[in-house]
Amino acid sequence: MSEVLAATGEAVDSGDGPKPVRIGLLGRGNVGAAFAELLAERADAVEAATGRRPELAGVLTRSSGDFEAILERSDLVVELMGGTEPAREYAIAAMRAGRPFVTANKQLLAQHGDELFAVARECGVQLRFEAAVAAVIPIVRTIQEGFAATEIDKVYGIVNGTTNFILSEMAASGAGYDDILARAQELGYAEADPTDDVSGADAAAKMAILARLAFHTPVTLAEVTYEGIEAIQPDDLAFAKELGLSLKLLGVAERRGAGISVRVFPCFLYSGHPLAPIEGAFNAVMIQADAINEVTLSGPGAGGLQTASAVLGDVVSILAGDAPVHETRTELPIVGDVPSSFYLHLEVADQPGVLARIATVLGDHDVSVKSVVQRGIGEDARLVMVLHECLESSFARAVEALNGLDELRGPARSIHVIEEGF
Amino acid sequence: MSEVLAATGEAVDSGDGPKPVRIGLLGRGNVGAAFAELLAERADAVEAATGRRPELAGVLTRSSGDFEAILERSDLVVELMGGTEPAREYAIAAMRAGRPFVTANKQLLAQHGDELFAVARECGVQLRFEAAVAAVIPIVRTIQEGFAATEIDKVYGIVNGTTNFILSEMAASGAGYDDILARAQELGYAEADPTDDVSGADAAAKMAILARLAFHTPVTLAEVTYEGIEAIQPDDLAFAKELGLSLKLLGVAERRGAGISVRVFPCFLYSGHPLAPIEGAFNAVMIQADAINEVTLSGPGAGGLQTASAVLGDVVSILAGDAPVHETRTELPIVGDVPSSFYLHLEVADQPGVLARIATVLGDHDVSVKSVVQRGIGEDARLVMVLHECLESSFARAVEALNGLDELRGPARSIHVIEEGF
Repeated sequence: MSEVLAATGEAVDSGDGPKPVRIGLLGRGNVGAAFAELLAERADAVEAATGRRPELAGVLTRSSGDFEAILERSDLVVELMGGTEPAREYAIAAMRAGRPFVTANKQLLAQHGDELFAVARECGVQLRFEAAVAAVIPIVRTIQEGFAATEIDKVYGIVNGTTNFILSEMAASGAGYDDILARAQELGYAEADPTDDVSGADAAAKMAILARLAFHTPVTLAEVTYEGIEAIQPDDLAFAKELGLSLKLLGVAERRGAGISVRVFPCFLYSGHPLAPIEGAFNAVMIQADAINEVTLSGPGAGGLQTASAVLGDVVSILAGDAPVHETRTELPIVGDVPSSFYLHLEVADQPGVLARIATVLGDHDVSVKSVVQRGIGEDARLVMVLHECLESSFARAVEALNGLDELRGPARSIHVIEEGF
Repeated sequence: MSEVLAATGEAVDSGDGPKPVRIGLLGRGNVGAAFAELLAERADAVEAATGRRPELAGVLTRSSGDFEAILERSDLVVELMGGTEPAREYAIAAMRAGRPFVTANKQLLAQHGDELFAVARECGVQLRFEAAVAAVIPIVRTIQEGFAATEIDKVYGIVNGTTNFILSEMAASGAGYDDILARAQELGYAEADPTDDVSGADAAAKMAILARLAFHTPVTLAEVTYEGIEAIQPDDLAFAKELGLSLKLLGVAERRGAGISVRVFPCFLYSGHPLAPIEGAFNAVMIQADAINEVTLSGPGAGGLQTASAVLGDVVSILAGDAPVHETRTELPIVGDVPSSFYLHLEVADQPGVLARIATVLGDHDVSVKSVVQRGIGEDARLVMVLHECLESSFARAVEALNGLDELRGPARSIHVIEEGF
């Protein structure tokens, strides 16, 4: 834990418990506002997890607040303003003043990583930036902490949700790039000026950060070559579908001989590739190493609340220090009987009225049929159903009743189902 | 950092640098042996990441070694012996002696979690167990650290590789459970006595651990209800395929009203579910919460080396303390020209000899064709190819030459390809 945090917190543990941790927030756009709200909402949980209660010490916006004053009364600084200046200047000032610094700013890290990491080391403060790559997907933490001693060979990433959304929609609809881009803009998945996303530049900044962490070597944004999705044609996607390939804007950082290669380009993936099923505005990163085989992390790569969650996770890690010892916060009862959906397989006598009889038994137990298929004839006749969600106890009693019917040639078989939307 | 580590390390920083960290290893089976080897192999990397060099202080096996003596000369204890006794006794003794404790033992945590976490808190030592659930997939770290302040609603897990392998093979081949189980045993994916895996008991222990962490509430193995895969019939899988569903042995831990439900059962998943594409001996866990939407982590869930890697990650986290500040260890050159595979789309004149001409140009630039399809006629004639891996510079020169051919009706279009095995 940094000296500032210790000095203002643990060391001044009066009868009222430790003082709150004062957080200086730089920026109150989409993510900044979501973070401020989440921080208030989850203050109890942060206190339970870390022993320290967070509170906002001040917010710097374009039109209000003074950085020096906010820094003075903060124990920890969170930067969500974006852009490289004055974010870089503030980051350095905060760390030099001994404040741990949390940011979601990929450009800051990709362009000024060397300088920022050097200052963090020199000042002995934490610099955390989980939200800068793939929002709430814990890829920075995983590479820096879990795999810190792992010889990573490759990092493959779908790290731009806008382009993954556009490519998914183009593949699904057969429509052209311009049409789908316009739709993405309407839906809020693409900016009015989409250049940074569709050109691959945004993904390149993220890959520069991941490559640096994975290979422990300086990588600057200028060293990452990238190619965008603007030239992709619908018929490329149609051919790909025939070949069982799916198209992604892929970031690739890999060892090549005694060096590394860090690039972003549109790429067809074979259907078994761990990144092939990632559709829509999602992000995913796959890490490959001899000792781990391959590990893939996926989830929403953007969104104010998701990004704010990743920032909050960094704040919690700083406050928690080095010891994540599980602590019981509550004693939740185990609920024995829950609603579930089921698949039901019945071997039935091939005679009129069987389905009606079975549906009646199910109905008597508050179980209703969502879909049913009749298969086979004679000795092989079967009913296969998917049922609407019902209490498991009701379902168990219904099955017991069904098993008592003369019309069944064998015991009913059932399996849980999770359908879309559940 | 624990007092023991500080006392034996940082405090005694003579001219030769800090003393090594002495690791006591309990157990030398498959995972234990892999860990000992990995520790030696990655000692430099651990030192680079943490400033402390690890060395084995002693190994306790069934036939050799004395626990008390090993504990005495260890700074940190790693338990890979399995079983609940004497593992529980050793864990408590180690933590009471101030030693951080790392284990891959799911039964230990699932059955004696309350006691072990209480001792860890009381003694102020770290208890880490990433490898106990889903091997090298960083799910414990993610729930405990990144999402410590997140209100998690659901944890869905494919946490048993044996059963996922069996179900994947049954679905792919149409063969019955007994046949596939026998094959899994031959391939080493299933034990001679597979009961613990196929009954769902192994998955239940892992879900007890995940539910405890996710909901901050005591969950014991006895409270987890489970159902195995022994009764699954090939025709259930056949019907599922028709319905677009895939069958998994699913662990579900979720909030239900004011309580929670923690269960393991075979379950059909709709095709868009993040766990639906997880095939073979892999594991995956999906975490759902309002603030994060859903995050999925997947990878190999077992294997000596993979499990040992997760254990090493825990050791590194303990040694690193609270500050994962990125440090450059090397300066790797960026390799500009790398081998890649490409898809190539050519709009061509519909006349004899075109393909030969194009193949010759490609061949002249050391680019060879893996597969080719001719589509359309007349004005719409096209050649679509997938090429063998070649240097990107060769490919660029080949494309330039192709674009000079009269037979091309428009510029060649190319897209990277990653095929199976690359």
